[in-house]
Amino acid sequence: MRQILIIGAGRSASSLIQYLLNNAEKENLHLVIADLSLALAQKKTKNHPSATAIALDIFDEKQRKQAISNATIVISMLPAQLHIEVAKDCIVYKKSLVTASYISDAMQELDAAAKANNLVFMNEIGLDPGIDHMSAMKVIDSIRDQGGKMILFESFCGGLVAPESDTNLWNYKFTWAPRNVVLAGQGGAAKFLQEGTYKYVPYCNLFRRTEFLDVEGYGRFEAYSNRDSLKYKKVYGLEDVLTLYRGTIRRVGFSKAWNMFVQLGMTDDTYVLENSASMSYRDFVNSFLPYHPTDSVEIKTRLILKIDQDDIMWDKLVELDLFSKDKKIGLHKATPAQILEKILNDKWTLQAQDKDMIVMYHKFGYELHGEKKQIDSKMVCLGEDQTYTAMAKTVGLPVAMATLQILNGKIKTPGVQLPINKEVYLPILKELEEHGVVFKEQILPYTGYRLE
Amino acid sequence: MRQILIIGAGRSASSLIQYLLNNAEKENLHLVIADLSLALAQKKTKNHPSATAIALDIFDEKQRKQAISNATIVISMLPAQLHIEVAKDCIVYKKSLVTASYISDAMQELDAAAKANNLVFMNEIGLDPGIDHMSAMKVIDSIRDQGGKMILFESFCGGLVAPESDTNLWNYKFTWAPRNVVLAGQGGAAKFLQEGTYKYVPYCNLFRRTEFLDVEGYGRFEAYSNRDSLKYKKVYGLEDVLTLYRGTIRRVGFSKAWNMFVQLGMTDDTYVLENSASMSYRDFVNSFLPYHPTDSVEIKTRLILKIDQDDIMWDKLVELDLFSKDKKIGLHKATPAQILEKILNDKWTLQAQDKDMIVMYHKFGYELHGEKKQIDSKMVCLGEDQTYTAMAKTVGLPVAMATLQILNGKIKTPGVQLPINKEVYLPILKELEEHGVVFKEQILPYTGYRLE
Repeated sequence: MRQILIIGAGRSASSLIQYLLNNAEKENLHLVIADLSLALAQKKTKNHPSATAIALDIFDEKQRKQAISNATIVISMLPAQLHIEVAKDCIVYKKSLVTASYISDAMQELDAAAKANNLVFMNEIGLDPGIDHMSAMKVIDSIRDQGGKMILFESFCGGLVAPESDTNLWNYKFTWAPRNVVLAGQGGAAKFLQEGTYKYVPYCNLFRRTEFLDVEGYGRFEAYSNRDSLKYKKVYGLEDVLTLYRGTIRRVGFSKAWNMFVQLGMTDDTYVLENSASMSYRDFVNSFLPYHPTDSVEIKTRLILKIDQDDIMWDKLVELDLFSKDKKIGLHKATPAQILEKILNDKWTLQAQDKDMIVMYHKFGYELHGEKKQIDSKMVCLGEDQTYTAMAKTVGLPVAMATLQILNGKIKTPGVQLPINKEVYLPILKELEEHGVVFKEQILPYTGYRLE
Repeated sequence: MRQILIIGAGRSASSLIQYLLNNAEKENLHLVIADLSLALAQKKTKNHPSATAIALDIFDEKQRKQAISNATIVISMLPAQLHIEVAKDCIVYKKSLVTASYISDAMQELDAAAKANNLVFMNEIGLDPGIDHMSAMKVIDSIRDQGGKMILFESFCGGLVAPESDTNLWNYKFTWAPRNVVLAGQGGAAKFLQEGTYKYVPYCNLFRRTEFLDVEGYGRFEAYSNRDSLKYKKVYGLEDVLTLYRGTIRRVGFSKAWNMFVQLGMTDDTYVLENSASMSYRDFVNSFLPYHPTDSVEIKTRLILKIDQDDIMWDKLVELDLFSKDKKIGLHKATPAQILEKILNDKWTLQAQDKDMIVMYHKFGYELHGEKKQIDSKMVCLGEDQTYTAMAKTVGLPVAMATLQILNGKIKTPGVQLPINKEVYLPILKELEEHGVVFKEQILPYTGYRLE
């Protein structure tokens, strides 16, 4: 019996646990599902004979060490900054480790120790990061194997609402941490490379510099740029590409509307508003508008944002009840970002019948035998229900599959790593296809950085 | 003989030293002018028999302690963050201290020790902070002495170019640290109070939410809000006012034009540009614009900033040579803000014949015997030349005057303080008038927060 310790039983663990339970008998697995909340952990066992729930406070060193020492392999689904103590114990007790988070500097420092103990510390093996790495490297490696040279790489990903549940003017609902959506793009300029020129976009312009993307059967999307595109030069070995761009996918019109919040200052998380608890939604809006004794909040909003009478931007604001005198914030010492998150949660929370959708889109430009070519690779994944969402599937399944491959000695290269090697991505991408995560690749004439 | 140790002999020390030398014989003063650069210190002595220059590295503890122990009183004109070691030595050797900087937490912690040793630690006694405190508190105290109740306080200050030297389209030249001008408004939303409502303005909107100010004989100005208006509630005892606003004065049209830099991302100081040294000014602009194989930098700039063919905003950009292919940045690993500062310095550096100008404008609203009234108080100060600038005068003279008053026992209340008490501001404001720093006060009908 091989014991898999899963630390953290939140939303993203559902598909991961289901996959491992489905394989438990055949693969001789026993899952120990550990969470601060024993009730949550128990719920996730679904009374399966191959699963045990335990309460685990990861700050309790004795508890943590005991759970890890009993395991054959460890999966940490904790928030990114909490992995490191688990990782250090994995070195001590000689257990391999799987996470879906970016490799932190502290994690990277364990590389030599992991190698010395022949342990696989697999990270960034969820959706984004995760499936993006694997699906991109598969195409990049195949271009290189033919003797091609990469000249362009653009990559886009978004967590959206499925077309059948797309029922508001923003064409958006929260399918993942709302706080991350509200804070997206803050903390520094977006940096990328277009046809050999480094480009920089400040936060105040980020949502006005979108690109369009068309996905057959799903229509048109837009993307705004991520902050970190340039780091992929090193990660994917793309030091010589002329274009390098990563972005976040939304439905067309979302970014222009979101920019209204940015311009008003409603996404700021650095200070708290006076009297936030007793404010109405309308008072909140008025905090960002000039004083006037008689002009309404509505007309001041229209003027500062230059919203014409018949502009759909206006309807998007009204749909959120932003001008309501009756709805109260009710949050003490809240930042603008926290208040905006609450207001959006009223309207953008997935309902019981709602389904989500993941869209990923890569563009690869390359030179082969003196000719420039392009491959576009697209993936759309739809959620099944509120538990087995597209997000839970695409984040959790690669984690589960990698864990089993490590247990079975198929993934064996030791060290702190991310899934950019064939040993890892080939079998996992293949198995993901069986679960509906399918990339469609098209060879196209090379257009370079795309112009309208 | 009373020895005044002046640490720091930069631009702001000129008028300060001149004032003290003019009073040296009558007041029995000897100045020790200390600077890291002995040459600069020597230049500032002007070979006056009552002045000695010394080289002083304030990080050399022995040197520093010796200079302080020899002095009767100490003036620190160092950058704000460097005062604290000087201040601690002043406690040890029982010397009073004068600075023109905001009171830091570390400085405030010395309050009890200063009081125990009967020492005056006078801070914030330059222009802004300094003359703003004194001229505002004079009116506020007089309103209160009559039994009035403050309901509105707005205060504006700007360092500008004198009308006779106002020769560019921006109506602006650098009369003080250019870096502070480029970074102005960054680091958090501006916060103020208008007719009982707290208002918040994000950086991306700061330069679009200006107010107009008219000064007789000098025409119209505008002001954008400072970040810190609310802290004046406590400093001036204005806990019950309905309107509290502090702003920075520019000529009309400056802020709208400056906002172009903000929107493009050129004021960002948080990252360095790739290849900054070899870039042309034109390349720098293009870094913030979308890629296009044939569209010019000019038309891309016009489009992203929505600049019409005949808009003066365009001429303001052209005047800075922003589209020059020939002018090179020449700065290694420079941030956008550092590059912008360099480009602006080409055009906005005061020339030999140029004079500067300080404008200060306060509005006081109050209730007296059931009636609402308003006082506007305005001051304009013009520079004499490149050494005795309006900035050097208004920063340096109050420091010098306060130093002499402390020496002569006129200012005697001990402790870490700023000039908000009558003992301090009455004699200094009176003496400043002799030097051309005159506030003109008008009693007006109360308008409340001003509407256009």
